[in-house]
Amino acid sequence: MNYMSVKDIDSIDTWVNEARIIKKHPLEHKKLGADKTIGLLFFNPSLRTRLSTQKAAQNLGMNTMVMNFDKEGWALEFEDGTRMDQGKSEHIKEAAQVISQFCDIIAIRAFAGLQDKEADKAELVLNGFKKYATVPIVNMESSVGHPLQALADAITLDEQLVALQGRKPKVVLSWAPHPKALPHAVANSFVEMMQKQDADFVITHPEGYDLDPEIVGKSTVEYDQKKAFKEADFIYTKNWSSFENYGQVVSQDGSWTIDQEKMDLTNNAKFMHCLPVRRNVVVTDEVLDGGQSLVIEQANNRTYAAQTVLKKILDNM
Amino acid sequence: MNYMSVKDIDSIDTWVNEARIIKKHPLEHKKLGADKTIGLLFFNPSLRTRLSTQKAAQNLGMNTMVMNFDKEGWALEFEDGTRMDQGKSEHIKEAAQVISQFCDIIAIRAFAGLQDKEADKAELVLNGFKKYATVPIVNMESSVGHPLQALADAITLDEQLVALQGRKPKVVLSWAPHPKALPHAVANSFVEMMQKQDADFVITHPEGYDLDPEIVGKSTVEYDQKKAFKEADFIYTKNWSSFENYGQVVSQDGSWTIDQEKMDLTNNAKFMHCLPVRRNVVVTDEVLDGGQSLVIEQANNRTYAAQTVLKKILDNM
Amino acid sequence: MNYMSVKDIDSIDTWVNEARIIKKHPLEHKKLGADKTIGLLFFNPSLRTRLSTQKAAQNLGMNTMVMNFDKEGWALEFEDGTRMDQGKSEHIKEAAQVISQFCDIIAIRAFAGLQDKEADKAELVLNGFKKYATVPIVNMESSVGHPLQALADAITLDEQLVALQGRKPKVVLSWAPHPKALPHAVANSFVEMMQKQDADFVITHPEGYDLDPEIVGKSTVEYDQKKAFKEADFIYTKNWSSFENYGQVVSQDGSWTIDQEKMDLTNNAKFMHCLPVRRNVVVTDEVLDGGQSLVIEQANNRTYAAQTVLKKILDNM
Repeated sequence: MNYMSVKDIDSIDTWVNEARIIKKHPLEHKKLGADKTIGLLFFNPSLRTRLSTQKAAQNLGMNTMVMNFDKEGWALEFEDGTRMDQGKSEHIKEAAQVISQFCDIIAIRAFAGLQDKEADKAELVLNGFKKYATVPIVNMESSVGHPLQALADAITLDEQLVALQGRKPKVVLSWAPHPKALPHAVANSFVEMMQKQDADFVITHPEGYDLDPEIVGKSTVEYDQKKAFKEADFIYTKNWSSFENYGQVVSQDGSWTIDQEKMDLTNNAKFMHCLPVRRNVVVTDEVLDGGQSLVIEQANNRTYAAQTVLKKILDNM
Repeated sequence: MNYMSVKDIDSIDTWVNEARIIKKHPLEHKKLGADKTIGLLFFNPSLRTRLSTQKAAQNLGMNTMVMNFDKEGWALEFEDGTRMDQGKSEHIKEAAQVISQFCDIIAIRAFAGLQDKEADKAELVLNGFKKYATVPIVNMESSVGHPLQALADAITLDEQLVALQGRKPKVVLSWAPHPKALPHAVANSFVEMMQKQDADFVITHPEGYDLDPEIVGKSTVEYDQKKAFKEADFIYTKNWSSFENYGQVVSQDGSWTIDQEKMDLTNNAKFMHCLPVRRNVVVTDEVLDGGQSLVIEQANNRTYAAQTVLKKILDNM
Repeated sequence: MNYMSVKDIDSIDTWVNEARIIKKHPLEHKKLGADKTIGLLFFNPSLRTRLSTQKAAQNLGMNTMVMNFDKEGWALEFEDGTRMDQGKSEHIKEAAQVISQFCDIIAIRAFAGLQDKEADKAELVLNGFKKYATVPIVNMESSVGHPLQALADAITLDEQLVALQGRKPKVVLSWAPHPKALPHAVANSFVEMMQKQDADFVITHPEGYDLDPEIVGKSTVEYDQKKAFKEADFIYTKNWSSFENYGQVVSQDGSWTIDQEKMDLTNNAKFMHCLPVRRNVVVTDEVLDGGQSLVIEQANNRTYAAQTVLKKILDNM
């Protein structure tokens, strides 16, 4: 099995339950990964994903090999039939087959370039590895999705549900401003995750910031942030660049920053963000440092999300 | 013992046999390397060597420490008696002695600079470590040789010999075009390896691309590629820059690209290349993706070549 | 417990004794660190610290995760209350809390920038991690100190004391010239270490190179190098930039280079340096390669210094 996107989760309830049991006993399956090797291939920076995925693999007794592919390996060609007489030294066909011989699982991080919508949607790197690798592939954030983050978010939400005493939660995904153009991967996977949950889910952002309609589907979009926040139990915040004007920053509207005044419109909602977060741009210090913030626990759950995925892959070998 | 070059192999038949047994039971000697540490020092990019040597060490139960020396350490001085008041911060004398105290084996990758023939032939980095280290040294591709690749190639050849039913194979090392100036290391070590084999061995390349005559020795050189390919059982392809006009690209003659038409001149020969390979420059897609290609298995055998070398070193400790 | 500076050593005699026992039996406590993970975060190059700290952790059975934070992670913000709309992507508050969830110990290298004395004295990186992390912190060289080096130096000194037959040693810390502006960390920690020792300790350097008076305290300073060397048993050499004219190279006076003639003024003193060292600028080949040099053993003792610190931290968990 691969873990390419949230769509690869067959039963989110089962997965989250399993993750919460793993969190209680993280070393329970320490022999499962013995003599198995995971290769972590990074084409972009990483803190949480790098450390939590290594930690998860080590909790399962696996060997880890970490490679900053863009700096330590060869520039990869992804197109078929090319005459490789320019900058690219190695074709994904060979790279993926070869690495499959050294690793039992290959995990890959390759961000969106945000220059070419069709190229990003095609997920050249992730799909290239999937196509040619002969071992399971794990997505550590691709151009389109970040399903390990979304699984950690689902675990975090689940841990909070007890406070709602059985009431269906209202969950809001809110865009917030940012000085740089950011990918859609985290927002996409969170939307897909919420579509699997029994929740009242609303996406809010300025006009011009609609996410890919193929992902949003029938999910509710509300352009009035304050209206969206009413009665919310969870505010999940993330910046992304425009999808329509692909990769552009069409607004840095500071009135969308998450502050306490806005949080006070909610039903004492918890604040969520995948990190890293720009303080006082995306969210104020007051909210981030306050008792409603779940961001540190979300990061903690990255280990158990990764460990759940790796355990399932190992179980299926 | 060190593994500096193909010359360090005392009996190629014994080594290849041992490698093929290790390939069948790669975890058989997992206790041999317990509490032993290998340091992998890279002065250049690496994919196969990086991952296969780590994998080999882990199969033997060793700890691994990987260091991109050029980016993560200090710039090294190799000359004796220098006044070190320029860019170099540390002398190889100290570096090699110090690393020997942290590692039981030191493996090193340091490519040819292709600027200065004498400097490259002197193998400053590899020989500097050999001279001052107090532990065994493994060559992970130096300016002059790539003996781990050559050992993997010997394993790969040996696996194919059964099809020849005892007939002596004809093996051709063919130059092929490439847009950049490449080192001679892989070709050199392959030549040295073939000189240890019971084979009809021919080197073919355009005039001006003769390899170091000290390495070629009495091996046959044929400037007519098509003539060389006749009756060949194995076509080993590699680009290298000129040795005479040191480090220069004196031809990118596309008529030397390996294509199916040329492969059809052979005795249904297998195609070999060390990877990474530039498709449709060095070799056509048709040949590389066809049934005659051994390149993926060559890469696979890198693990068992490295494991054979490390096992022999550990056995000798 | 943290290991932020030499001040964190409660009893130097006990620590050195323990280190020397560990050096004799480095694998004695191999189960102590089982299922524990150390994160090594580098904001600067490192050879000895990188490898010796990993080796020490592996000797204790720990898992290691190494990260070149400046290249592989996100640019960190250390100021409170900032509007993070410039180059910094992540605040130390989140980074330190998050990494604490993946690592049982966090070790950090972050050199002085030598641009802003107050910022360097504030040790933004190290103290930022200390403030927000929830696990022990180890200093792998900060802007102000290098206490792992100083502990290795104390071990090295102790090993030599037997030759003095109970006589109190004279130890000289001598500045030497260098082409680049270097931090004060090694010199600072050595001074602090000597202040804990029963020794006749003298610091010698050209005028204008006084170390931070808060660190020097009542230690003796002698501006005449030759006078300082008289009757010395140990010459510990290090370059540093001016503290008063902060970060400036105010002299490269070659008459301060350590040569044999100067060593002959001493009581057959041993030569010490933390490495890397610039030959024939800081010290001549003759002295460094001669029988009086302890530099390789100092580097060797880095493993046992780190192992002593990590063992104490693990014992306290």
